[in-house]
Amino acid sequence: MSFQKINSLFPNSLVSINGEIKTPKDANISIFDRGFLFGDSVYEVTSITENCPMFFDEHYERLINSAALIGLELRFPKKEILNQIYQLYEKTKYSQSYVRIIVTRGIGEISLDYNNCHDHSLIIIIKELPENPKTWYQNGVHMMISSILRNDKRSMDPNAKSGNYLNNILALNEAKKAGAYDAIMVNNDGFVTEGSTNNIWMIKDEKFITPSLECGLLKGITRTKIIKLLNEHNLPIHEAKISPTEILSSDEAFLTSATKSVIPITQINDTIIGDGNPGKWTKHISEIYQKFIEKHRSSFSFDNII
Amino acid sequence: MSFQKINSLFPNSLVSINGEIKTPKDANISIFDRGFLFGDSVYEVTSITENCPMFFDEHYERLINSAALIGLELRFPKKEILNQIYQLYEKTKYSQSYVRIIVTRGIGEISLDYNNCHDHSLIIIIKELPENPKTWYQNGVHMMISSILRNDKRSMDPNAKSGNYLNNILALNEAKKAGAYDAIMVNNDGFVTEGSTNNIWMIKDEKFITPSLECGLLKGITRTKIIKLLNEHNLPIHEAKISPTEILSSDEAFLTSATKSVIPITQINDTIIGDGNPGKWTKHISEIYQKFIEKHRSSFSFDNII
Repeated sequence: MSFQKINSLFPNSLVSINGEIKTPKDANISIFDRGFLFGDSVYEVTSITENCPMFFDEHYERLINSAALIGLELRFPKKEILNQIYQLYEKTKYSQSYVRIIVTRGIGEISLDYNNCHDHSLIIIIKELPENPKTWYQNGVHMMISSILRNDKRSMDPNAKSGNYLNNILALNEAKKAGAYDAIMVNNDGFVTEGSTNNIWMIKDEKFITPSLECGLLKGITRTKIIKLLNEHNLPIHEAKISPTEILSSDEAFLTSATKSVIPITQINDTIIGDGNPGKWTKHISEIYQKFIEKHRSSFSFDNII
Repeated sequence: MSFQKINSLFPNSLVSINGEIKTPKDANISIFDRGFLFGDSVYEVTSITENCPMFFDEHYERLINSAALIGLELRFPKKEILNQIYQLYEKTKYSQSYVRIIVTRGIGEISLDYNNCHDHSLIIIIKELPENPKTWYQNGVHMMISSILRNDKRSMDPNAKSGNYLNNILALNEAKKAGAYDAIMVNNDGFVTEGSTNNIWMIKDEKFITPSLECGLLKGITRTKIIKLLNEHNLPIHEAKISPTEILSSDEAFLTSATKSVIPITQINDTIIGDGNPGKWTKHISEIYQKFIEKHRSSFSFDNII
């Protein structure tokens, strides 16, 4: 791909590779890096709005956890990653930024054996995060229950946010082909786990229900926050095993993600959820969550954490 | 990692990146390439000995198949890949070369959706392939039945040789930690599938048995050749579901791989296989296979295929 094309895909983006700041066209890594050869890496995605790197502490903790799940001890201190993000942010200053933090096991012999790898790589990408389409929030989205099963946690734990994303890529693209917004993936036992890059929720008889972690899914940061908020507001929340039949007969459904907050789900496969419009409890929790992140932004900013 | 370190790890290696020949220290790819971000790539490994790119036709066919399994249509003709390999080989001329062919889905928006990716990347690595340690063949190796299950074929088909290798990396490194040479991975139903980068065989009552493809494993090229050779020599061969108990009570066991041919297995977990020495049928098929590849080498060389 030509340099022009790369720069036009990521206008004004910046990348830090092991501390060196690069423009997109110069943001290269060795093909011998295990992140490239095997997907032997972990990552996090967060956003920056109004000087606030959203829930950075939580994202850093999860990066440590993902790394541990693939036998990698994270060597980059929180402060170092935060400083590098800030250096990129200072030079870009988008009103909303997308931030991707990638840690790879680095370069060694070409072998699955990782004992000869000592220099991990740290890559940080910052790019503009455009506003999400309003229709997602106003009309809701259409999901498809995927024929591709989510990786079993005894094989490749979905709670590790790693460089191995083909399972989700296949599910998402199957859903896209069918005209859906995203896939809902089930596990080997037939229970709902998560979307390709988001957590799934349903509401039945005024109870909020989301797949329990034992089903094999990423412990979403938005998911955790919403569970906490529901509890604080005395709204009933259950983490449970959800069958496709159950979610198809839910009163309301929604998904959550760090860069998308709360998106109503108004159709799953050919089934209309509720009356086909975003449900009232979905709107309610979405409003509570919006207030919560605004509060977070006002209290957690580069001004007081760097 | 410093340039000196990369060159010392891969002395005199050469890499072709979309047709441009690079030394290891300059062999870089964009961090926006999906091969790096998601492991969204497929690959093959073969060897060159005495001017013969071993079973190249079969490796190319499998590359097409792996690509199809991840929804990628291979755009690089066989002749083009072969010519690029030859260009690297001509400049290196190791007595034995390791060749890795990688095709990635290229660069697009940072999104699991691959519909905006149009320029696939082709990377070819050539490096010296040192002789394998003689002790592997003389004494056999020790395998460990892994606690990490092989990816389910309904999630991420092990028959796709892709850039998602964390499942195997975790299993191999668990085995290495326990002092074993490699892992034997079982599927969700508890049946043997394959090693981390090889196929598994057992012999019981003078019958050769290897896990059937329905168990979820890579259709190894050496595996296919050996099945054919066993049939030609009227030796009984069964593709079957093998339980760990069965392989632990086998008379002989061995593994096969493109770069390692036939390696006897003399111990699995704490269980000695047979009398603890490479078995007679293992030696027999190994000799038949050696003759077969010598014949292939003499008939299939760059001299008559380029």
